[in-house]
Amino acid sequence: MKRKKFILPEGQMPTRWYNMVADMPHAPRPYLNARTHKPTTMADLSIILAEELARQELSTERYIEIPEEVQQIYRIWRPAPLVRATGLEKALDTPAKIFFKNEGVSPVGSHKPNSAVPQAYYNHKQGIRRLTTETGAGQWGSALAFAGRHFGLDVEVYMVRVSYDQKPYRRLMMNTWGAQCFSSPTTKSEAGRAALARDPHCMGSLGLAISEAVEMALREPDTTRYCLGSVMNHVLLHQTITGEEAILQMEMADAEPDVVIGCIGGGSNFGGIAFPFLRKKFCEGKAIRVVAVEPESCPKLTRGHFEYDYGDMSGYTPMIPMYTLGHEFQPSAIHAGGLRYHGAGAIISQLLHDQAIEAVAVPQTETMQAGILFARTEGIIPAPESTHAIAAAIREAEQAKREGSEKTILFNLSGHGTIDLYAYEQLLAGNLRDDRPTDEEIARTVERLEKLM
Amino acid sequence: MKRKKFILPEGQMPTRWYNMVADMPHAPRPYLNARTHKPTTMADLSIILAEELARQELSTERYIEIPEEVQQIYRIWRPAPLVRATGLEKALDTPAKIFFKNEGVSPVGSHKPNSAVPQAYYNHKQGIRRLTTETGAGQWGSALAFAGRHFGLDVEVYMVRVSYDQKPYRRLMMNTWGAQCFSSPTTKSEAGRAALARDPHCMGSLGLAISEAVEMALREPDTTRYCLGSVMNHVLLHQTITGEEAILQMEMADAEPDVVIGCIGGGSNFGGIAFPFLRKKFCEGKAIRVVAVEPESCPKLTRGHFEYDYGDMSGYTPMIPMYTLGHEFQPSAIHAGGLRYHGAGAIISQLLHDQAIEAVAVPQTETMQAGILFARTEGIIPAPESTHAIAAAIREAEQAKREGSEKTILFNLSGHGTIDLYAYEQLLAGNLRDDRPTDEEIARTVERLEKLM
Repeated sequence: MKRKKFILPEGQMPTRWYNMVADMPHAPRPYLNARTHKPTTMADLSIILAEELARQELSTERYIEIPEEVQQIYRIWRPAPLVRATGLEKALDTPAKIFFKNEGVSPVGSHKPNSAVPQAYYNHKQGIRRLTTETGAGQWGSALAFAGRHFGLDVEVYMVRVSYDQKPYRRLMMNTWGAQCFSSPTTKSEAGRAALARDPHCMGSLGLAISEAVEMALREPDTTRYCLGSVMNHVLLHQTITGEEAILQMEMADAEPDVVIGCIGGGSNFGGIAFPFLRKKFCEGKAIRVVAVEPESCPKLTRGHFEYDYGDMSGYTPMIPMYTLGHEFQPSAIHAGGLRYHGAGAIISQLLHDQAIEAVAVPQTETMQAGILFARTEGIIPAPESTHAIAAAIREAEQAKREGSEKTILFNLSGHGTIDLYAYEQLLAGNLRDDRPTDEEIARTVERLEKLM
Repeated sequence: MKRKKFILPEGQMPTRWYNMVADMPHAPRPYLNARTHKPTTMADLSIILAEELARQELSTERYIEIPEEVQQIYRIWRPAPLVRATGLEKALDTPAKIFFKNEGVSPVGSHKPNSAVPQAYYNHKQGIRRLTTETGAGQWGSALAFAGRHFGLDVEVYMVRVSYDQKPYRRLMMNTWGAQCFSSPTTKSEAGRAALARDPHCMGSLGLAISEAVEMALREPDTTRYCLGSVMNHVLLHQTITGEEAILQMEMADAEPDVVIGCIGGGSNFGGIAFPFLRKKFCEGKAIRVVAVEPESCPKLTRGHFEYDYGDMSGYTPMIPMYTLGHEFQPSAIHAGGLRYHGAGAIISQLLHDQAIEAVAVPQTETMQAGILFARTEGIIPAPESTHAIAAAIREAEQAKREGSEKTILFNLSGHGTIDLYAYEQLLAGNLRDDRPTDEEIARTVERLEKLM
């Protein structure tokens, strides 16, 4: 009998996060202050982030201890299982071994609380009483609602109106954990009022929601800070708990991955699984390929430019050196809402620039078909974001079959799709579209980046 | 540091189910053939159920081996965690230790696949190619869709129209696993056509959906059988994997429960956690209280009569000796749809009659308030059904505090509430109602039972 799951005992849960910056062939260029164009300082960052998070953002230490209070909450669902995808292997009739790390077991249903919990903790420790954030599809907002509740923090989530209307379950989840969730644009902020003055029926955007969340945080600097769910170094740092666990679990399974795969929006679940394995590649000389999978409709890694850009659409964040389609790029409305982001975090972008990782773009229909095959062979209905990793894993397994090679594949299942079932309905009804931006469309938003510097 | 979770290694997952009948002080009276009123035979049962399931229904063997093929699918999510509810304990400031078994970790989100998987397996082994079933809120239909897929079976689910319209996510889940889900009444069956002829706008009922599912199975006896998700002995047998695991996990936690709690609809999650602990009570003399928790709006155990009754509303099933409100009783539309059942399975009813277990009825508002406290302290949003067990556990913990006793409480968290969030919205909005049937309402449906015999 092949073992199905590899679960670390609670006592073996890793107790430190891994900072990729310590071992990169070339460190990423610094963030720049958007106004002065000088390297961003602790002081710049601490205006919007908790101090310890600002410190982690700029840190070059290899390991950072996970506070005991954070570990306690992690233990609600961590260590998360590593699973051998025996059903999928059988269906593909492949000689490849396929493993996945199941981050969908968290109460929120995704990897997002891995960073939401420490962000809430450090803010609480600093005496902050209120957090603001934005959310698109709702995974990050749910995670911060969950995390904030554990430390008695008030959490305000600005949710893009189109999602607020379409995804009531995510909003209800935030309310159940005691957070407030507002349909953005609101009349609470100047940014929101200005947007509504221009268009009373404005459906919102992630950029606008960030503007509202940051503005509301800046207004109460004694009590309030802003939190972000991806892109920045400290967020990816927290996510490395995933890869650190996976390394120990692959040892339990007596296997080593030849290829490690994650889907990519801003980079949080990808960095989480990839960075610890990249350490093995850089420091132990292991021959591990690492693949980031993006939607063909939002191809920042495969077709974007490596430039300084804003992390948000309004220029509130520092300027980040990244592979980007330009912060004004508007990806089509694919179901994988968490991957509709114009750029990739600085560390990931530098790694791609140095050819230490690979990138692949997959069309929506292929990803959702991979998702349904996974649901029917492994039982778990994956989030539309995670189906991108599955699709790339299937491509690798099929290649292994053609070559007759016994490749070992590991991918990160970033979340379950239990409340994203509408995407599956659209696939089954034959209504899914594959959008691929033209070169002209990409050039239009990328070209404007030159004016920023 | 207190340990949070107790997870059995996969290799220690129990490999046999426990048959409560073997150790009961008094065996339940036999089922009766609804037409002849003679004890039901294998031949009677095998018309609608797979033979092995009919055999298990009548079995008195203490243990039944779990087939390896079933164990393999169980391993997708089992062993399920036993969790120490440290957050809830702290919020209640109680000296009691509270543990819960988390059955919400299955791909379906509840305990239901514990029986759906073996039911699909035995039907497949017998050469059956198609299964029919009914579903109310959708948990059981989803579980059979999930299970049937693993054995290549066609699954047809008749879903009560009111739920079909209100709960699209459950239907989409069934479709994603490849099952067909029909809004009952349909025009496919005579029962459905007759109902639609009487009322073209008929919103359906569980009784009618059962009638449709059984009729469609009987029509193709060479290829098709019917499956049921609760009430019957073989279903409760399969669910004992829960309690068998919990016994081993409580040993890991170095604790023994003073009280074991489960919510009750037909009895499947309650029996699953309770029966193995009742074995310890009956065979090892352990002083364990076992408490079944029902909604105050459907109080079969606390206010029903102990009589022979039909398991369904149309009289398709054998007559079952049970605590019942009468098969025509219409409970109010509480959010815990899985508990809106008029009777309790024969074994559970006999145990209550013999005072080997206790029963308690809890109003809806109290259960949902318990659910929100649990979500905010333990992180997991519980299903409305499971909040009944939580409410009773809280009552026990508060009593322990008043008495200053160090009671150990174990309850079964039968499922998560991620796609039942509407119930929480109603609670937060102050819109929940507590319905309690009058004595006259109960008498009206119970009195008619006399005419059945």
